[in-house]
Amino acid sequence: MDVKELIDALDEVLRLKRVPRSGWLYYGVQPVESVADHSFGVAFLTLLLAELLKREGAELDEARALKIALLHEIGEAKIGDLHLESRDYIGEEPIREGEKRAVSDILDKAGLPELVDLWLEFEERSTPEGRLVRAADKLELLLQAYIYEKHGYGNLERIFREKRTRKNFEGFKIIEKIIEEIDSLRRK
Amino acid sequence: MDVKELIDALDEVLRLKRVPRSGWLYYGVQPVESVADHSFGVAFLTLLLAELLKREGAELDEARALKIALLHEIGEAKIGDLHLESRDYIGEEPIREGEKRAVSDILDKAGLPELVDLWLEFEERSTPEGRLVRAADKLELLLQAYIYEKHGYGNLERIFREKRTRKNFEGFKIIEKIIEEIDSLRRK
Amino acid sequence: MDVKELIDALDEVLRLKRVPRSGWLYYGVQPVESVADHSFGVAFLTLLLAELLKREGAELDEARALKIALLHEIGEAKIGDLHLESRDYIGEEPIREGEKRAVSDILDKAGLPELVDLWLEFEERSTPEGRLVRAADKLELLLQAYIYEKHGYGNLERIFREKRTRKNFEGFKIIEKIIEEIDSLRRK
Amino acid sequence: MDVKELIDALDEVLRLKRVPRSGWLYYGVQPVESVADHSFGVAFLTLLLAELLKREGAELDEARALKIALLHEIGEAKIGDLHLESRDYIGEEPIREGEKRAVSDILDKAGLPELVDLWLEFEERSTPEGRLVRAADKLELLLQAYIYEKHGYGNLERIFREKRTRKNFEGFKIIEKIIEEIDSLRRK
Amino acid sequence: MDVKELIDALDEVLRLKRVPRSGWLYYGVQPVESVADHSFGVAFLTLLLAELLKREGAELDEARALKIALLHEIGEAKIGDLHLESRDYIGEEPIREGEKRAVSDILDKAGLPELVDLWLEFEERSTPEGRLVRAADKLELLLQAYIYEKHGYGNLERIFREKRTRKNFEGFKIIEKIIEEIDSLRRK
Amino acid sequence: MDVKELIDALDEVLRLKRVPRSGWLYYGVQPVESVADHSFGVAFLTLLLAELLKREGAELDEARALKIALLHEIGEAKIGDLHLESRDYIGEEPIREGEKRAVSDILDKAGLPELVDLWLEFEERSTPEGRLVRAADKLELLLQAYIYEKHGYGNLERIFREKRTRKNFEGFKIIEKIIEEIDSLRRK
Repeated sequence: MDVKELIDALDEVLRLKRVPRSGWLYYGVQPVESVADHSFGVAFLTLLLAELLKREGAELDEARALKIALLHEIGEAKIGDLHLESRDYIGEEPIREGEKRAVSDILDKAGLPELVDLWLEFEERSTPEGRLVRAADKLELLLQAYIYEKHGYGNLERIFREKRTRKNFEGFKIIEKIIEEIDSLRRK
Repeated sequence: MDVKELIDALDEVLRLKRVPRSGWLYYGVQPVESVADHSFGVAFLTLLLAELLKREGAELDEARALKIALLHEIGEAKIGDLHLESRDYIGEEPIREGEKRAVSDILDKAGLPELVDLWLEFEERSTPEGRLVRAADKLELLLQAYIYEKHGYGNLERIFREKRTRKNFEGFKIIEKIIEEIDSLRRK
Repeated sequence: MDVKELIDALDEVLRLKRVPRSGWLYYGVQPVESVADHSFGVAFLTLLLAELLKREGAELDEARALKIALLHEIGEAKIGDLHLESRDYIGEEPIREGEKRAVSDILDKAGLPELVDLWLEFEERSTPEGRLVRAADKLELLLQAYIYEKHGYGNLERIFREKRTRKNFEGFKIIEKIIEEIDSLRRK
Repeated sequence: MDVKELIDALDEVLRLKRVPRSGWLYYGVQPVESVADHSFGVAFLTLLLAELLKREGAELDEARALKIALLHEIGEAKIGDLHLESRDYIGEEPIREGEKRAVSDILDKAGLPELVDLWLEFEERSTPEGRLVRAADKLELLLQAYIYEKHGYGNLERIFREKRTRKNFEGFKIIEKIIEEIDSLRRK
Repeated sequence: MDVKELIDALDEVLRLKRVPRSGWLYYGVQPVESVADHSFGVAFLTLLLAELLKREGAELDEARALKIALLHEIGEAKIGDLHLESRDYIGEEPIREGEKRAVSDILDKAGLPELVDLWLEFEERSTPEGRLVRAADKLELLLQAYIYEKHGYGNLERIFREKRTRKNFEGFKIIEKIIEEIDSLRRK
Repeated sequence: MDVKELIDALDEVLRLKRVPRSGWLYYGVQPVESVADHSFGVAFLTLLLAELLKREGAELDEARALKIALLHEIGEAKIGDLHLESRDYIGEEPIREGEKRAVSDILDKAGLPELVDLWLEFEERSTPEGRLVRAADKLELLLQAYIYEKHGYGNLERIFREKRTRKNFEGFKIIEKIIEEIDSLRRK
């Protein structure tokens, strides 16, 4: 491990504090949370969900799940945050390829190239932990939309109706219950 | 022309006021100008440069040049603003393809599909007007970097050394003189 | 042309990116667009409207219209942005005189003093192009008000009822149709 | 006193929290303090200076001085904040006239029209208290410039060299000492 | 008095311009006013209320009331702004003790240690002037909440229902009338 | 577990996105990162450091370390973020007590009261994992200070000289190396 390179990698990852979540700007929320804000939310949700699922007997490697949550957005330090419409136009493939290379380059500099496999589990939903973080990622989005709406933002209906946001929850009863409750709180 | 569609197109284009120029955030400038701010700067520069060039005998279609300047970033209303490192990772090709489709879709809604050809002149530098706006686009970036640096931002050296930024100026004596002057002002 | 002076003029004009549109702050919108954001919007609207009007047979010098749109607010780089109530108290006359001198001084530095005549066409509505940009200026305001309102801002009713905002649209059928549509969208 | 009118007047005065001090934006500071922030600073400085001056034997009506300090900017709730260059172009006279009418209108609504005389003492430097607040107003500006510069803003030299800023301090030894100390701290 | 120390004290007090009123962030308002903004509001309200009360025959030392208003938050320059829930968890006692020491330290540096007694009058409501500023402090909060709500913020109901906010108004008829009017304006 | 309560707990924790890190405002950085931004940084650093330490043979429970990192600031959702000077004035004891109760209340609502023990390991440095996160917390602060300074902020020297910031690194060779490198990069 090269200390100078490690600091460089950290400098890059901490840039996520300055990358705005572009979807909110798209819908007229201002000022908006950063990608780092969101990543904290996803990791915290992953922690809560993993604890609650384990209680119900699920077998989950918590360390793995939390590492995936913390790693899943670091590519955006180099790529930026691309909202859904942006991804529709550019295409998922080149973005995913670019993001993968970006994650690799950061982790190489940090002296931990092997961690890229965890990022892949998120992308490919290839493990229960990858699927859990994938669900936490979308649940965090819906929670934040619910919060912004409560605070007065008026243009977020489309987020709640977006099917791509809701398709990751299968198999997680508890998340489905949370979503139901959010939907019911919104109707009030 | 469908009025409802036209308003929709305008709603989209005015979204550029909420798209931050991501390169500045990347280098630690906060808060930053919007893409609409930058587009105004490019169009204004195009106007000045066209007037000065015409005086020196250049043959330029000013209306064409100004239209190109005003259209050249509207795709970012759908794609977002991708800085250089992002483009390196995702690849120019899919971004350009996506941007072209985005520009087309906006102009279709506005009932003016034929304007997409002007956008292409910018992308392909296929006309003197397209080349002029291309140069104005980069000159505007350097001017803004010079201004931010004067105001105290400390991390912008790489922008001035970036070769891709400077390669569009060939054939425009006046721009070369402006760049020389900026370089000399920075040394003070 | 003196290059140092030209850079100085550009430095001043690009200051419009840091001049907030004071009317929105007045009504409680925060954060707000800049004058440069607005100028981009006006110039873009001018482009669309000119194209659509020409199709209907109107005779318009597009280059002239676009130049007027890009020049019409540059005096605010020196004067600042004064909202309607401010203008009521200070009086239109001294503001207009000050703005004219400011525009002249900027264009003198840029080596293009003759462009001040275009600014006058806007102020005096003395040409079809001046009248078009005048209308685009107010239409842009109403569009932005409609957008802010949709995003949740609750205090903008007075803008839609302000007569001074609406009096510039006479003779432009297409703008009247757009305004009608905005009014109808707001009622929903 | 009409309660509804009083609330209206307060709503207007509290708008000063949303009026940015335009001079800082002019020089590239972002984000900037509000006019209400500045007014607090001036009133607090007035309090300190009055206490220190009284100790040295000066005869000052503190209540009067503090009221002047709190009233001196309320016209900007209707007029906006105009920096020095803006005042050079528009002219002091119409701005002062407008501001006076604005102050009157606010105080009328608040049911306290007689307070406008205090505002005049500031404008006309016609009383020791008016002169003290005038000096505090400029000292606050220099202190804030010193603070912004310490924090990294790089473009504030002109504020320290501006003669109009410094001409209000005559007759106040203690303020002259503070200015000297600021100048000496800046040289370090 | 030591000039260097005095500047230091002022540097600290002016820091209030950068301390956000944390209660608004808690409820989802963004961006928010500063503590200095609020202090200006309280001092201005104190001025209006004192004038109106004197007219009704109240005996009030206006200079004392205004000084209390300007001093009442300066401890937050060192302590920060703690919202109600924060105070519930940490406990009023240590916060008040800390704030008192902070106010003392600032005033000592400014060479005016005796002013700390004025701050105590606010804390202890031990004088009519202390009670007036206490009431103005809460009235300012309600006015600002009313204003934010009018601008579109949707989550402020709890502030209007909070009993601690409303308990300081006893004995001030005029304030009770203002509150009634705000309540009635909100119902519309 | 009560779903409504769980959403409430999450609403509270996500409030950390709106809690500014008050120390930066104290030193004149604006705009600043949120506590959620910082928590992400600490958790990410914990992940990297744990991986690197394990490689060198350290025995660490990574899941435990990551959970501590994600939990260590959640009390600030109710308490706010108190910088060092604030803690000096209020006293560590009541803040720690308040924070502990706040963490408990959030975790109770989330149906996971037992997690409070992990928070205690951070506070009391009672386990290797608690000590690691404690060190990561301070390292993250120094890294962010280094980054802000590089971007032009001029007032951060005191953070690098603060002894309390540096005392948590004993026993972690790798962190000491990183700090040395930061110090050397700063001297350039």
